Amino acid sequence: MSKEEKTGKKLKPELLGGFRDYLPSVMIARQEIVSNIRKTFESFGFLPLETPGLERSSVLGTDKDEFKMQVYRFKAGDQDVTLRFDLTVPLSRVVSANADLIKPFKRYQFGSVWRKESPQAGRYREFAQFDADIVGSDSILSDTEIINLMYETLKNLEINEFVIRFNNRKILNGLSFFANFDKKKTSQVLRSLDKLDKIGLEGVVKELESKNHNEIGEDGLALSEESIYKIVEFLKLKGNSQELIQKLKILFEGVAVAEEGIKECEEIIKNLEYLNIPQINWKLDLSIARGLGYYTGPVFETTLNNCPEIGSVFSGGRFDDLIMRFTGEKIPSVGASVGVDRLLAALEKIGKLEKKNSTAKALITIIDQSLSQKILGIAQKFRSVGINTEVYLGKEKGLKSQIIYAAKREIPFVIIIGEEENSVGKIKLKSMNERKEELVTEEEAINTIKKSY
Amino acid sequence: MSKEEKTGKKLKPELLGGFRDYLPSVMIARQEIVSNIRKTFESFGFLPLETPGLERSSVLGTDKDEFKMQVYRFKAGDQDVTLRFDLTVPLSRVVSANADLIKPFKRYQFGSVWRKESPQAGRYREFAQFDADIVGSDSILSDTEIINLMYETLKNLEINEFVIRFNNRKILNGLSFFANFDKKKTSQVLRSLDKLDKIGLEGVVKELESKNHNEIGEDGLALSEESIYKIVEFLKLKGNSQELIQKLKILFEGVAVAEEGIKECEEIIKNLEYLNIPQINWKLDLSIARGLGYYTGPVFETTLNNCPEIGSVFSGGRFDDLIMRFTGEKIPSVGASVGVDRLLAALEKIGKLEKKNSTAKALITIIDQSLSQKILGIAQKFRSVGINTEVYLGKEKGLKSQIIYAAKREIPFVIIIGEEENSVGKIKLKSMNERKEELVTEEEAINTIKKSY
Repeated sequence: MSKEEKTGKKLKPELLGGFRDYLPSVMIARQEIVSNIRKTFESFGFLPLETPGLERSSVLGTDKDEFKMQVYRFKAGDQDVTLRFDLTVPLSRVVSANADLIKPFKRYQFGSVWRKESPQAGRYREFAQFDADIVGSDSILSDTEIINLMYETLKNLEINEFVIRFNNRKILNGLSFFANFDKKKTSQVLRSLDKLDKIGLEGVVKELESKNHNEIGEDGLALSEESIYKIVEFLKLKGNSQELIQKLKILFEGVAVAEEGIKECEEIIKNLEYLNIPQINWKLDLSIARGLGYYTGPVFETTLNNCPEIGSVFSGGRFDDLIMRFTGEKIPSVGASVGVDRLLAALEKIGKLEKKNSTAKALITIIDQSLSQKILGIAQKFRSVGINTEVYLGKEKGLKSQIIYAAKREIPFVIIIGEEENSVGKIKLKSMNERKEELVTEEEAINTIKKSY
Repeated sequence: MSKEEKTGKKLKPELLGGFRDYLPSVMIARQEIVSNIRKTFESFGFLPLETPGLERSSVLGTDKDEFKMQVYRFKAGDQDVTLRFDLTVPLSRVVSANADLIKPFKRYQFGSVWRKESPQAGRYREFAQFDADIVGSDSILSDTEIINLMYETLKNLEINEFVIRFNNRKILNGLSFFANFDKKKTSQVLRSLDKLDKIGLEGVVKELESKNHNEIGEDGLALSEESIYKIVEFLKLKGNSQELIQKLKILFEGVAVAEEGIKECEEIIKNLEYLNIPQINWKLDLSIARGLGYYTGPVFETTLNNCPEIGSVFSGGRFDDLIMRFTGEKIPSVGASVGVDRLLAALEKIGKLEKKNSTAKALITIIDQSLSQKILGIAQKFRSVGINTEVYLGKEKGLKSQIIYAAKREIPFVIIIGEEENSVGKIKLKSMNERKEELVTEEEAINTIKKSY
């Protein structure tokens, strides 16, 4: 017995802080979103994969000290294990362990991930991601296909007001040459740039010039005034995607790595133009850096115009070196991940989440207990022709209460069978929306209900 | 850096023991099973619910010592947490925490659960369950509906050779009166009966007469010879469901609790007969006890005729007292759970799992890189009319290799566009199954592919 039960205190039905349930009204909508996304991903030929929630810490790389506060890591017997924090690292394990997978391997995966972050609006410690990745292709067409997939996915969800913002790590990696700072500082600089949306340009500059240790104990960047000036010049570049490309070409002339990144961006832009993906839905955005260390080329983020505060709902990038951790062999890959629960939170916030309280189209009431077998039979018949049908199973004996149940559940049709109806071989069909009742045969009822949706 | 990376040793892409991946060929089939089950559950009006994988140990009741070796329990900060081991206890928390849920509350939930069992064939430490429960109904119609749901679910999966075996805890609770042993020993006796399939009648008798501590440290049952004789007499009752009812009525005459259970079984049988559920698919089986302590009435198990060794694939029962743990209020409930991964393992074993290697219907090859934008455009068009279409993104430049890729993936159509085809405004459509090629317009290709499925 638990302590609470022993002491007679009632047990509180409490969730852990930062975790949530999805009750049916939201869950029905969430499920529709998930199957809509699946359909789009499959339209591009992506294949489903499932991996466990629990993995070896060494495999996830969470046996490093820096991860300590961010993941759920524990000992199970004598094993050091961690709940997965993303779906990309497990993918890299699967690809490495199954050398015979046909490549390019285009896989999608939907599942929960766990992060010990401090909970915020729309951010939980357990949340679902829906990833699509192309493993084993270095073609810029793959990067284009991922952006195309991002666009089609959101469009198919009837979300039209969004911007897919992309950049290229190779351009950012060129910053040290252009702005003249130690190349080794690049990843720390990028993590600062990544905070631009949050802390503003002034905040970023403060971090770049700081001589003090930062919050994770690294030495301050202490960049020179000239370096900071150049970085700010870079961040302040203005214009549409095509104009930015021209400005970047001048700015980074002679910096080989950046020139390669600029060329990749240029090709992506041309492809997107050819595909007629509306220019209001994408743009080259030089402030996109993506915090994660493993990106090597194009990087993507997506913000909803009406809910920018929730952050990116669909992000990713190219990660050509991640799988090398296991195999030593370079397997170029690119992909993106929908933050399903963040997207859901955003849609809920902007009032675009259609809530439903029922999966049933018809409720059959039970007034006369002696007819209950007959009623089970009618339900069976309705279901067999594709009508989702519920039999009233509650304790209310009266018709009125059972109709109130249907109303609360928003079940559109109620079927009433009493002695009277039964004696003439008919049933009473009540349309809850039209507020009318008629005495009909079972077949007539089936036709009426089927016609309604 | 992890230790392996530091020492230059290559990291092994290893799963934890007892865990598995679902690669696409199996995962496509698994996903079809899951959505098929969902459809059946919704046809009965069940509503989706989602709860976290991680919960407070006190809420799951895993802060009891007996659970220590069976679950993944750990400290997260100062909190005692456990990965859920089933979906029923979380349901009871949700119902208790949301008093305003309309009842009866018919919910379904699909998700992973974790148990630290020793791995066996078809049994893993992380596996998916698909539960349906009716909360807030004490009507025997609800129990019937659950069995009906179990039948329809398996039938809709085109599994026909199965037996839903049911019993009633009330009959089993009558055993102590009939066989004259201490009522307090009932749950331990039932746990022994539960092993009948595994250890045989002899093994069960040995446990019933044993005076030694059992493996979880309980005192031996040490039942008298007379008690054991009576229990064996009970277990040896033979006959079809209707005959068993008559024999039970005689055997348990005057044992009120058992008589109530017998009456419930009788009603369920009458309902199933009325619904014309084939009698080869269900039977009253007195050896079904269900190990879990929380069942209070009807209990169900389902075995596949061609794979009995894998155990029950669809089990459940009535649990009228479980939710009381939180609220103190009795909320009668009944439900059942599909062991999705166990079912999958069984289907795989008996060769009834149809594996697929692709979600795409067409692959567009890229031979001439200068046409790649045009090819992206054709893919976009095909997808927009509902044809799942993959663009070849691999590194092979030759047509033959790209066709081999399509063959390996079992993609039924290949589209070839070279300079020649492009100059006459046509594309070449190759049917992989019929091994023929034709020069067609895009519209003709779309029609041919759509007609093929």
